[in-house]
Amino acid sequence: MIGTEIERLIQLLAKLPGLGPRSARRAVLYMMKRREAVMTPLVKALAEAAEKIVTCHNCGNLDTVDPCAICADGRRDPTIICVVEEVADLWALERAGTYKGRYHVLGGVLSAIDGMGPEDLNIAGLIARAGEVGLGEVILATGATVDGQTTAHYLTERLAGCDVTVTRLAQGVPVGGELDYLDDGTLSAALKARRPF
Amino acid sequence: MIGTEIERLIQLLAKLPGLGPRSARRAVLYMMKRREAVMTPLVKALAEAAEKIVTCHNCGNLDTVDPCAICADGRRDPTIICVVEEVADLWALERAGTYKGRYHVLGGVLSAIDGMGPEDLNIAGLIARAGEVGLGEVILATGATVDGQTTAHYLTERLAGCDVTVTRLAQGVPVGGELDYLDDGTLSAALKARRPF
Repeated sequence: MIGTEIERLIQLLAKLPGLGPRSARRAVLYMMKRREAVMTPLVKALAEAAEKIVTCHNCGNLDTVDPCAICADGRRDPTIICVVEEVADLWALERAGTYKGRYHVLGGVLSAIDGMGPEDLNIAGLIARAGEVGLGEVILATGATVDGQTTAHYLTERLAGCDVTVTRLAQGVPVGGELDYLDDGTLSAALKARRPF
Repeated sequence: MIGTEIERLIQLLAKLPGLGPRSARRAVLYMMKRREAVMTPLVKALAEAAEKIVTCHNCGNLDTVDPCAICADGRRDPTIICVVEEVADLWALERAGTYKGRYHVLGGVLSAIDGMGPEDLNIAGLIARAGEVGLGEVILATGATVDGQTTAHYLTERLAGCDVTVTRLAQGVPVGGELDYLDDGTLSAALKARRPF
């Protein structure tokens, strides 16, 4: 006997990752009790975002402008491109705040199981950008998973003809990590890549 | 360097119960990648709900009509009122699907710590409804917490003058519950309220 509009809202919210029917109900009740403070601004923000969001034709980032704010930012180093799997990875690197170059979002990784081939990813765009004059380095920042590493290897081959240095993220002990809790693979990688102190 | 509209949407979503900054980011990315299938319907459902939702003047339920669908439903028994703390409790009872009477939402419980007194709850409305001709029973379905039970006791006193039977939910072993894992209080209550087999 919940109103159909409310029921529908709960169903839609429950589809979001991290939310289920129970938390969607809680969220809806929370919003409805705070209509002016929470619900109205959220409706506005969501409608605005839905209307304005576009995929950057250059790097594949999501933004309200095209080219995106990062591609359009003249202060960012145009000689480096960091290749990431998803926009979420781009956001993570931006939160870290140390990278000042440009990005390229692949939109996934090569995966035999998921049926993702090279033509399903934004690789043609990357090759085109890598061929541009002035580009010096392509950082492959795909995940340290099997698929991520496969993709990185594939990209290295594809980029072989371009006049760019291809690098990848360092592997090793995470900051704050205790050796005792690390997996064997990470420990081996950290040992192999040890550096003078 | 995330667009301000997207940043704002994430901040607003992160305020909902059960969501934090991380899950809000995930949800926003998920929506943005599925604009037609997820984001647009959600905007519509949210806007519709925000516009239409009202508090039922009779029972305090939230619905898109006033009186709410339950109060307006002629098939529901008008001689019983079930008193609950919040709309979420009403929804829980509706999901159980066995109760066919009306409700009364208090909007909270008496709580010295939170500074909730009788005047902060929708008690006047309950007393008025309890005084109406034809009402036979008031079920006190407040929580089995200290505050919930205090509120139930207070309501029993206030309802003493009205010509209604005041009942409360049974306490005992939850369905599917194993005795070994039950707390002492529940076991004692179940033992005290034992019934012929």
